[in-house]
Amino acid sequence: MINIEVCYSPELIHLYELEGKIVVVTDILRATSSMVAGLGSGVKSIVPVKEVVACEAYGKQGFLTAGERNGVKVPQFNFGNSPFDFMKEENRGKSIAMTTTNGTLAINKSKGAKKVVIGSFLNLKATTEFLKIAQDDVVIFCAGWKGRFSMEDTLFAGALADSLKEHANIGCDAAVGAIAIYKAHENDLLEFVLESNHAQRLGKLNVKKDIEFCMEQNKFDVVPMLDGNFLSI
Amino acid sequence: MINIEVCYSPELIHLYELEGKIVVVTDILRATSSMVAGLGSGVKSIVPVKEVVACEAYGKQGFLTAGERNGVKVPQFNFGNSPFDFMKEENRGKSIAMTTTNGTLAINKSKGAKKVVIGSFLNLKATTEFLKIAQDDVVIFCAGWKGRFSMEDTLFAGALADSLKEHANIGCDAAVGAIAIYKAHENDLLEFVLESNHAQRLGKLNVKKDIEFCMEQNKFDVVPMLDGNFLSI
Repeated sequence: MINIEVCYSPELIHLYELEGKIVVVTDILRATSSMVAGLGSGVKSIVPVKEVVACEAYGKQGFLTAGERNGVKVPQFNFGNSPFDFMKEENRGKSIAMTTTNGTLAINKSKGAKKVVIGSFLNLKATTEFLKIAQDDVVIFCAGWKGRFSMEDTLFAGALADSLKEHANIGCDAAVGAIAIYKAHENDLLEFVLESNHAQRLGKLNVKKDIEFCMEQNKFDVVPMLDGNFLSI
Repeated sequence: MINIEVCYSPELIHLYELEGKIVVVTDILRATSSMVAGLGSGVKSIVPVKEVVACEAYGKQGFLTAGERNGVKVPQFNFGNSPFDFMKEENRGKSIAMTTTNGTLAINKSKGAKKVVIGSFLNLKATTEFLKIAQDDVVIFCAGWKGRFSMEDTLFAGALADSLKEHANIGCDAAVGAIAIYKAHENDLLEFVLESNHAQRLGKLNVKKDIEFCMEQNKFDVVPMLDGNFLSI
């Protein structure tokens, strides 16, 4: 029986043993949702990078550049962090270099794991099926917000852990907590997220349409995986 | 209107601004429950210290010594970390030096705050009333378990935040999450905690009676406060 743990923040991931495990990185608003939307819509690969300058360097090599800082598009990039940008027809077959405030950091902090995959509500079912087949222990790693606990990431962690729990041992209190929050709000997920602090910050940036899309479930039957520095399906 | 935040771990407290705020430290199993039980039963003062050797040094000055490492009493100390030890008649008027795995660390990391007080289910109502009168912003600081999220501390944080929410702004997603978990389990608190990982670890150490006591509410009408290195009421 596989073991499921949840980590709420990049500031806590050093407390988790990752070796031999599958890490599912999630940053629902909006990095991992956009990755899933892009790779599920024909983008060839995505390279997540920490810094704006690293993203620009990939841009000079022919990559599209994407990303935000504090929820706002970096001016010189091709686009920001909206899933709708990643799904554009003209991106098909292209590679994208992407930097975000929280999601990229979490991916980079996952590199000791056996496998690093990308989770979001948009590919919840595909991720569940992948993990059931893989039969490795799992750490669901919430990107959070500037190191802090983030509601939408926790709800996804709870949904994923809940969908696996008949086949798994729930291995830490953070996973028990995520499931409890998810089960309490599974019938009003979007409304509950819209009340959360992170969504309210983003709401000021007029991205309500993005938030609604990021909370939709099972739009893409893909599980992006990290290979070296590149995410692909 | 006061602002309420919740911090789930000593590994995250550096992300919170403490200056000018009241920090409520909680380590339900068992440090802050024992502090409340002791000070509510006539103990004069408690000095929380990080290291066993520091505790021994206080012992040589006439303090009683108390504490555990990984849930087990330190052999040379007068007693361990059970609230029943702290409530003994012979402790009345005495001072106790105490070291614990998680609780003492959290108290020491709170020292930049305006006030540091000790919260537990045993003094939940007294803490609520104190905070309503003080009208300062509040950070409820969960001691956690070796840096990780701990269910029983989170349930207390949720109960306290919930009891204040009509008079307060819920200022972070961690506080929203703690309230959601508490509300989902307020009618089966003890059973839910007994299923949690931390309680199961302690359960192996035959402290179920302690856990049941630590989950009782409003047994003591006291709010221990830190003054220099000393806790008293």
